[in-house]
Amino acid sequence: MRSVGVIGLGLIGGSFARAATAAGATVVGADSCAQTRRAALEAGVVRAAYDSPSAVCGADDIFIAVPVGSVESIFADIADALSPTSVIFDGGSCKRSVISKAAEQLGDNRRRFVPSHPIAGNENSGFSASNVDLFKNCWAVLCTDGVDEEAVQVVSLAWQQVGANTVNMSAAEHDDIFAVVSHLPHLLSYALVESIRTRPDSARYLHYAASGFRDFTRVASSHPIMWRDICLANADNLLASLVRFREELDTLEGAIKDGNSVLLYERFASARQLRRDWAATLED
Amino acid sequence: MRSVGVIGLGLIGGSFARAATAAGATVVGADSCAQTRRAALEAGVVRAAYDSPSAVCGADDIFIAVPVGSVESIFADIADALSPTSVIFDGGSCKRSVISKAAEQLGDNRRRFVPSHPIAGNENSGFSASNVDLFKNCWAVLCTDGVDEEAVQVVSLAWQQVGANTVNMSAAEHDDIFAVVSHLPHLLSYALVESIRTRPDSARYLHYAASGFRDFTRVASSHPIMWRDICLANADNLLASLVRFREELDTLEGAIKDGNSVLLYERFASARQLRRDWAATLED
Repeated sequence: MRSVGVIGLGLIGGSFARAATAAGATVVGADSCAQTRRAALEAGVVRAAYDSPSAVCGADDIFIAVPVGSVESIFADIADALSPTSVIFDGGSCKRSVISKAAEQLGDNRRRFVPSHPIAGNENSGFSASNVDLFKNCWAVLCTDGVDEEAVQVVSLAWQQVGANTVNMSAAEHDDIFAVVSHLPHLLSYALVESIRTRPDSARYLHYAASGFRDFTRVASSHPIMWRDICLANADNLLASLVRFREELDTLEGAIKDGNSVLLYERFASARQLRRDWAATLED
Repeated sequence: MRSVGVIGLGLIGGSFARAATAAGATVVGADSCAQTRRAALEAGVVRAAYDSPSAVCGADDIFIAVPVGSVESIFADIADALSPTSVIFDGGSCKRSVISKAAEQLGDNRRRFVPSHPIAGNENSGFSASNVDLFKNCWAVLCTDGVDEEAVQVVSLAWQQVGANTVNMSAAEHDDIFAVVSHLPHLLSYALVESIRTRPDSARYLHYAASGFRDFTRVASSHPIMWRDICLANADNLLASLVRFREELDTLEGAIKDGNSVLLYERFASARQLRRDWAATLED
């Protein structure tokens, strides 16, 4: 079993540390928050916890689990401390930006950096939200272009050991897909909540909000730094998916204005069918 | 215990019939679908089930649970069959349109029609989705302007007996509030799903959709006739809430284009705080 250094002990890093420890790995952690380090030590999730990211660079595998806007500074911190055999991977929700920063900061170590993204998480954040089962049966996307084959094997195994199923795709494809199915819904959910918050009488509305609102806005409870960074790092894809969404919204708005009941029915029925077919695949 | 006639034995009507029967009422039902009538009879939820809405007009209380676009034809069907003591109420998600049709169709019986709306339901539909607990602890909004006091008392009690908490508000206030916290999220969710469905390679995207997408799009699985009718019946409020949403979306889109990380963070952090405060009220 290889040793693991986890940089950032929040929801993702904390859950990875828990699952890796449970799988038998020796795990050390780094986090800038003293309270988080204490909590992780007390939970027995890490053997040691440090303030400085470079302090965990003695581990065989180094997992970076910080908001994508902070990955560059982590790379800069650890670059000189990496051993020539370290394998590095991250968990960020955007891959092109992280790869570009790795090329700038990691030098030759770039070939042992495996960009990855576990499709797991929820609206909570911080070590207190972490759990050992977070990655059970989720996808872990790997972007292996230009990466040493051995490093890919190590990181694939690491994800599998915490319960994830690995899949390989290009960073461009990754960033396109997740703009559409994840980043855009988050942006729309934040926008809906803000469009209510900024009403002078928002409490009157929220008093009667029910389960539809609850589920639609769950992701608007997500970590604002993480999502700010994602929106900026994947801006081109996110803006393109927003253009497409606006076209559809324009169609529906026009149908409502025109009283076009046939068109409205057709769109709602098509959407329902697709959503039901998709949900059925989850149950397989 | 008064007798109840339920017109429309879908999710709402079927659940009401189940809960009223469980509370000891004698319930008869009407539904245009023979299979639904058979299912409701076999489940012991109604003593008798008819094709024609007017066939249940011998009951003391008559609950109309059909899509809001069909309420007018139900009114027309039952108008002549109503007894001078019948109390009538509905469960539609828009109240002004239903009240206007009642004034046109019900004549003097309008004073014994209590417009109401249980804030309950989910993305499923039909009698098979009904359950006895659907209204437990939900709000039932009553719009009592111009309604006989005795009829209001009867309908308030009917909702309380199935577990709901009643609240009185004007139809205008109702339609404004639910445009914002319910109808708009449904429209946005349908639009997001359609913006993916209409991509030639939609399956590639959906393959990696996860829990954020699942919750955001749950309401896009809702009944297309019901939601077509709601969007058209509450068009003015829905379009106004959409204008406000678009302003907020424009702000966020502009911040992404400009790389305005401060503004993005502020909006996301505000939204998260409001959503968390709201969620905390659910737990009280």
